[in-house]
Amino acid sequence: MSKGIAEAVVGEQFEGFLLIKSADKGVASNGKPFLTIIFRDRSGEIDAKLWEISKEDEEVFLPESIVHVHGDIRQFRGKPQLNIRQIRLTSPTDGVSPEDFMEKAPVPVEELQEYITKKIFEMQNPNIQRLVRYFVRKYEHDLFVYPAATKNHHEYAAGLAHHVVSMLKLADQIKSLYPDINADLLYAGIILHDIGKVKELSSPMSPTYTLEGKLLGHITMMVDEVSSAAEELGIEGEEVLLLQHLILSHHGKAEWGSPKAPQIREAEVLHLIDLMDAKMNMMNRALAKVKPGEFTERIYPLNNRSLYKPTIE
Amino acid sequence: MSKGIAEAVVGEQFEGFLLIKSADKGVASNGKPFLTIIFRDRSGEIDAKLWEISKEDEEVFLPESIVHVHGDIRQFRGKPQLNIRQIRLTSPTDGVSPEDFMEKAPVPVEELQEYITKKIFEMQNPNIQRLVRYFVRKYEHDLFVYPAATKNHHEYAAGLAHHVVSMLKLADQIKSLYPDINADLLYAGIILHDIGKVKELSSPMSPTYTLEGKLLGHITMMVDEVSSAAEELGIEGEEVLLLQHLILSHHGKAEWGSPKAPQIREAEVLHLIDLMDAKMNMMNRALAKVKPGEFTERIYPLNNRSLYKPTIE
Amino acid sequence: MSKGIAEAVVGEQFEGFLLIKSADKGVASNGKPFLTIIFRDRSGEIDAKLWEISKEDEEVFLPESIVHVHGDIRQFRGKPQLNIRQIRLTSPTDGVSPEDFMEKAPVPVEELQEYITKKIFEMQNPNIQRLVRYFVRKYEHDLFVYPAATKNHHEYAAGLAHHVVSMLKLADQIKSLYPDINADLLYAGIILHDIGKVKELSSPMSPTYTLEGKLLGHITMMVDEVSSAAEELGIEGEEVLLLQHLILSHHGKAEWGSPKAPQIREAEVLHLIDLMDAKMNMMNRALAKVKPGEFTERIYPLNNRSLYKPTIE
Amino acid sequence: MSKGIAEAVVGEQFEGFLLIKSADKGVASNGKPFLTIIFRDRSGEIDAKLWEISKEDEEVFLPESIVHVHGDIRQFRGKPQLNIRQIRLTSPTDGVSPEDFMEKAPVPVEELQEYITKKIFEMQNPNIQRLVRYFVRKYEHDLFVYPAATKNHHEYAAGLAHHVVSMLKLADQIKSLYPDINADLLYAGIILHDIGKVKELSSPMSPTYTLEGKLLGHITMMVDEVSSAAEELGIEGEEVLLLQHLILSHHGKAEWGSPKAPQIREAEVLHLIDLMDAKMNMMNRALAKVKPGEFTERIYPLNNRSLYKPTIE
Amino acid sequence: MSKGIAEAVVGEQFEGFLLIKSADKGVASNGKPFLTIIFRDRSGEIDAKLWEISKEDEEVFLPESIVHVHGDIRQFRGKPQLNIRQIRLTSPTDGVSPEDFMEKAPVPVEELQEYITKKIFEMQNPNIQRLVRYFVRKYEHDLFVYPAATKNHHEYAAGLAHHVVSMLKLADQIKSLYPDINADLLYAGIILHDIGKVKELSSPMSPTYTLEGKLLGHITMMVDEVSSAAEELGIEGEEVLLLQHLILSHHGKAEWGSPKAPQIREAEVLHLIDLMDAKMNMMNRALAKVKPGEFTERIYPLNNRSLYKPTIE
Amino acid sequence: MSKGIAEAVVGEQFEGFLLIKSADKGVASNGKPFLTIIFRDRSGEIDAKLWEISKEDEEVFLPESIVHVHGDIRQFRGKPQLNIRQIRLTSPTDGVSPEDFMEKAPVPVEELQEYITKKIFEMQNPNIQRLVRYFVRKYEHDLFVYPAATKNHHEYAAGLAHHVVSMLKLADQIKSLYPDINADLLYAGIILHDIGKVKELSSPMSPTYTLEGKLLGHITMMVDEVSSAAEELGIEGEEVLLLQHLILSHHGKAEWGSPKAPQIREAEVLHLIDLMDAKMNMMNRALAKVKPGEFTERIYPLNNRSLYKPTIE
Repeated sequence: MSKGIAEAVVGEQFEGFLLIKSADKGVASNGKPFLTIIFRDRSGEIDAKLWEISKEDEEVFLPESIVHVHGDIRQFRGKPQLNIRQIRLTSPTDGVSPEDFMEKAPVPVEELQEYITKKIFEMQNPNIQRLVRYFVRKYEHDLFVYPAATKNHHEYAAGLAHHVVSMLKLADQIKSLYPDINADLLYAGIILHDIGKVKELSSPMSPTYTLEGKLLGHITMMVDEVSSAAEELGIEGEEVLLLQHLILSHHGKAEWGSPKAPQIREAEVLHLIDLMDAKMNMMNRALAKVKPGEFTERIYPLNNRSLYKPTIE
Repeated sequence: MSKGIAEAVVGEQFEGFLLIKSADKGVASNGKPFLTIIFRDRSGEIDAKLWEISKEDEEVFLPESIVHVHGDIRQFRGKPQLNIRQIRLTSPTDGVSPEDFMEKAPVPVEELQEYITKKIFEMQNPNIQRLVRYFVRKYEHDLFVYPAATKNHHEYAAGLAHHVVSMLKLADQIKSLYPDINADLLYAGIILHDIGKVKELSSPMSPTYTLEGKLLGHITMMVDEVSSAAEELGIEGEEVLLLQHLILSHHGKAEWGSPKAPQIREAEVLHLIDLMDAKMNMMNRALAKVKPGEFTERIYPLNNRSLYKPTIE
Repeated sequence: MSKGIAEAVVGEQFEGFLLIKSADKGVASNGKPFLTIIFRDRSGEIDAKLWEISKEDEEVFLPESIVHVHGDIRQFRGKPQLNIRQIRLTSPTDGVSPEDFMEKAPVPVEELQEYITKKIFEMQNPNIQRLVRYFVRKYEHDLFVYPAATKNHHEYAAGLAHHVVSMLKLADQIKSLYPDINADLLYAGIILHDIGKVKELSSPMSPTYTLEGKLLGHITMMVDEVSSAAEELGIEGEEVLLLQHLILSHHGKAEWGSPKAPQIREAEVLHLIDLMDAKMNMMNRALAKVKPGEFTERIYPLNNRSLYKPTIE
Repeated sequence: MSKGIAEAVVGEQFEGFLLIKSADKGVASNGKPFLTIIFRDRSGEIDAKLWEISKEDEEVFLPESIVHVHGDIRQFRGKPQLNIRQIRLTSPTDGVSPEDFMEKAPVPVEELQEYITKKIFEMQNPNIQRLVRYFVRKYEHDLFVYPAATKNHHEYAAGLAHHVVSMLKLADQIKSLYPDINADLLYAGIILHDIGKVKELSSPMSPTYTLEGKLLGHITMMVDEVSSAAEELGIEGEEVLLLQHLILSHHGKAEWGSPKAPQIREAEVLHLIDLMDAKMNMMNRALAKVKPGEFTERIYPLNNRSLYKPTIE
Repeated sequence: MSKGIAEAVVGEQFEGFLLIKSADKGVASNGKPFLTIIFRDRSGEIDAKLWEISKEDEEVFLPESIVHVHGDIRQFRGKPQLNIRQIRLTSPTDGVSPEDFMEKAPVPVEELQEYITKKIFEMQNPNIQRLVRYFVRKYEHDLFVYPAATKNHHEYAAGLAHHVVSMLKLADQIKSLYPDINADLLYAGIILHDIGKVKELSSPMSPTYTLEGKLLGHITMMVDEVSSAAEELGIEGEEVLLLQHLILSHHGKAEWGSPKAPQIREAEVLHLIDLMDAKMNMMNRALAKVKPGEFTERIYPLNNRSLYKPTIE
Repeated sequence: MSKGIAEAVVGEQFEGFLLIKSADKGVASNGKPFLTIIFRDRSGEIDAKLWEISKEDEEVFLPESIVHVHGDIRQFRGKPQLNIRQIRLTSPTDGVSPEDFMEKAPVPVEELQEYITKKIFEMQNPNIQRLVRYFVRKYEHDLFVYPAATKNHHEYAAGLAHHVVSMLKLADQIKSLYPDINADLLYAGIILHDIGKVKELSSPMSPTYTLEGKLLGHITMMVDEVSSAAEELGIEGEEVLLLQHLILSHHGKAEWGSPKAPQIREAEVLHLIDLMDAKMNMMNRALAKVKPGEFTERIYPLNNRSLYKPTIE
């Protein structure tokens, strides 16, 4: 598996192991059923078609299963597509496991853990520190496995923790430029703001929304958990309310899912840092795929803009 | 206090007891300070000006205090205004108390209590029934004292309970027309949907927003309380989630303060019934003030429309 | 024709009579022409493809014709699709007629007629009564055959009358809760508000928009007819203007097709009842197709929401 | 009455006859009642204050009455204001009549009449010609007296006819550039598009909205009249529908009051010509009041823009 | 090449020379590559499919090449489509050149040139005249070859000049109706407003956006050029600023690409004339393709409306 | 002048020198003229009224003049207001000059100059470096005197340079977190993005918009200057285009005044940094005026939000 699927060149062949992220059945214009598959490995994803499938194909090529594929890379509507020639399910003897196929954060998980731990350690306010520590312990495992979103930005293993750490670093710098900011509040807001996603999403590998995720959403779920935790830990005082507000308002305005807009300075800063890091992640990854002098594909959450990669140094 | 202040006719004099709802200091164009006061009694409210005030006036004529006033009713920008000639603070010997000056629901509180109790009694689903009963007990007093809003609709004593009971009656009828509706869910949603207002607002008499009300809002606070209550009562199951969703979504869409739009039938119905009863209350009260053939004053939450009162029977 | 087409299960075969609702020609990626057909029977509709058609197929399989079909039910883009194996036109000997294939209101037409007649009989205001009676007589036949809309809600035979009767029942209840409402105006508004659709739409069976429907729309056409009728009947007075206003404003605001927003109480109530009944009809029918614990397909006029069907009783 | 009130210079005195356009009572900060009056004569309008008024003043200085005024022109919030020293009602011996005080179209009424008559005479299509002639006769008087709007553009005597004639001239030119246009339809649409205003507005002098104007609006009223007229004249055929559509759609889109957008070429052109002439009228009149190198006051219906008057020739 | 491709009738065959406007590769559901081609000749454009292409086909059938085609005209999604049977590249001996296939302005280029020259000659203001003359000379060739847009309106050879001349004629008429307009400014604005398109678009034949066009846009580029030209010509004074403003504001408002809305009368008129001529061009061309009594296809930039072609004379 | 005017406490007296920022004449309800003045000193601004003014007062108390004032601080509509008892113009012997009354950046101008110089020195790309140096030299004086805006943020002497330096520091940190960013482009964009304001605004002291500022705006003016400068310096290449794009797009989208949205990564980052620093400046200054536990006044450019100042450490 030398070259990743996302690095495959149109016109070349591909042979190797891939994880099925999703598989949907369709009927071709000749009346024959086929599967639209999204494959992934660590390098990224590719669309594929498996034509004229049998009943068994349908039952066997399911999301989260690993397959060995041989096919050609083509261009389809401006994007590469894998045309499958041969495909088979893997067996234990192939020695591959799902984790091998997830894209990973570009930073080792241990570093992410360490950085978050250090930031919690530095907190001055004992109430804030205890609440944050409580949640980092509670979601110790998931926080370092889940993506930050199902698509668009940080959509890889430990993406959530990676997003949190990048935001903490940004916050560090901003705090040094604008010293009036309450660092404890801001850092706590950053660590907790999206942690509800581990309950909103079904699994880190091929995440879909849980029923609770659909009916309440990660923001409401997390605001709720903060008050339960505070009660459990016997913490009272404005800190609890402020942390709930930071989580509640971090989408910035009602239309974007925050029923209350930021009403403390740290909440506004949290919103801006979240925006900045999400956009940088999207832009950097789109630009990494094109050469100087070219435009990227359209990036939907950036108002569908294409970005130009300058030719100057 | 035979004739209420809201029934006073322009050109007449007024003499009687009034409650100060709000009092704001201004400076007139001649450089002299004055107070802009809103008075209220059971019949409603009136704007007033107290010209050339002294330091003591300022300190004495505060919100929630009761005064005896003598003055003239004038027209100002299309609305009646009370021009104060004499004003004095009341003393205990006057035998008046703040409750005497609050507008009241047009239905006795006992009836409201009874109706709500009956509806809870009729519930089939024990989990829903226990949760609703828990909250009605917890907020037993406030539910029958608070207004449903600070202005616009049901903004009188027990307005919250009155709004709830009107909505329950509407729901009754709608249930009989569309029998697929889960009545327990709908009734529970109606009873609980705005109960968070007793924590969002500072007091039933001259309500302002609490800090928690401003930073979280009554919807988030109540969703939060439902999960605490469920835990306390040892209730698990979809009922808890559905009730939280009903409360969370009852404003109908994100722009109106519900981060999740209704995703179950009963939530959509709850939203529509809420709208219907609030609008009926606003329209009926505005139309009650005009004669056939006239238009009402503009009603802000109805997109600033004036309503016409037909002359036909 | 035991099991209806809308109840057919993916994976099964279907054999029986169907009405062609629409048939559009396309060219497949292999260059061969095909038909995209929507079939209907009383149970509802299904999409279908007829591949590699001949010239005759094109000329014969037209909207409103009845055919006998044999085929397989498949899944296509998340919806069932009928893959046609055999199809032939019916002949008189088949003993089927178009009415057999239209979905019908879930209430007998006679009941609908009776209810409307009764409501008209109860009216107190002679001018309103005469005008309403005039139109119900004029459109006696069409009112009990036409759907209320071409899609989305009450899109079945007598859907218009069914919608009217449901609204009248809702109005009945609302009138008893808010007795200030002028019942005659409200009932008249309900009966007449959409009656212009019988001129806006070409036919009850496979309705398209008439030229007048496109250039003027049912609201304008009906407002116009009310004034002609009033002249014809020699009726003068505010009633005529109020009825015109009720019809004109029932979409609620300019963006939704009402150049004047409701300016009398009954017009606002009419708008809300219309909304309520249309939404209930959409929600009930979408939820009837799914099992507890599932989400419905997206409902476009409900802002494209899916609804969840709870698992609790 | 040599110099008009709109030409009066700040700092000067004014003495002469004026028409009261509107008079509203207020209460000053010293508790004394006063009147806010808008005066007009042919040159335009001016705001004025009449301080410390008596009961009689209130009853005597009513809209549409003519007064003799002596006062000073001041600057108030960036606009001239007349400070009244002396004011008295006129008597018959003063020899003034209301028409003397209305601003007039800058073109003699006879010319306007003649031009419209000529255009009707030139029409080829007999149905259109008869319908237009019918309405011009029916509203013969009002058409040449009413303004085109209560404010913003052509808000002077015969403003409606002036607007129509300017539009007809524009249409003439546009027809010669784009000969595919159906001139009869376009001219008919221009002549009839706003004629409903004579029923929407109460009077040409100090126009307010009639009840019918508020509940239906001039567009709906006129569409309605066209069908009655067609019936009366025994005219059938597409012409009637097209004329109704032209009137119905001339505001261009739903948000602007046209429930149907233009769907024939002539309707789109009508909308554009209407826009062009209304804007030219507003711009020309605002620019006429400033010197080269200055900006006009903000023009509300031009998105509140100020226009600059260039210094170049 | 008697009958043009845009006049071809569904069901007929076509044989003749065509220019390839664009050619995009796709993969059919049977896995075979194909080309989606847009052909054009003077009569207009047609979509086509070339199935099962070879590598050579892909390399040979490129935009701007001329081919000889034989095929059938079919209906596809409501539009004609050319199904290619035979296709070959042309050779010099075929005696055809690209200019033969471009749709042309319906007016000879010489007339357009003459009209523009005449208008420049008539200008009174020497500064404006020199600046306009400078640009017409600078872009002498391109101005009479480029389209006014890549699609929607005046998208043919010399479309830019044709649009300019139509607008000049409209301006002529409008000037005579509203004589306060500064003709020099308005004419100069018309001639220069879109001239930046010759730099924004890559070529007149199959135009795409240049990098400068994407990053700055024709408006900014042209505003910039005006100041360079003024400097080069030694012209100072308000004229330069006014011309820049005319160009900058001609899209009418920020959302439409003009960072400043029109702030002089001539700029507003320029914007309206631009709108009028663009809409007339779109409407006339769409209506030319349908028969009386039919609706046109939907016109995207007219809010996706279909227009009806009346049956009356 | 020990205590600044913005620190004055309601109820106290004030005596000292102040600069008149603006002075507008009004007429009181008693018919007497008065002046509404905004005074400023280094601490900030205060509103004031000067009642019953003479002609001379009007001519003497003009913007930018310095006066000696004695008066009382009052509360008016929730804000302090200075009630003037005595006021006189200063003479040279008072020894005060306008600069003494302008609020200053909280950082010495020398530091700002040094930082910008250093950043330019560090640039690697010679074209970018030369262009930036050219402009910093050209606007050497104004850049360190002008505010960044007339209100809302950095509206003090050298506010423009202070804003630039804060943004450069933010950029420094962001560059270290996201090393793919082209630092030269980003720094150049920051230094130049608002420099056009020195031409858009009339003066640093009491800035109003110049004619060029109104008709073109600082963005267009600066894009224009970059191309002239490049020509003058003989610089060609993508750098010029990219710098123009950075300036053009820094408001983020069309509605906010950027006809092109950011299309290179550095442009998006520039936009976000600009937003961040402007918001921090607004929030910090509003919060500095309130005590813990209080809300700030509403901040218009933050969607009119009030911010809460927490009571926790």
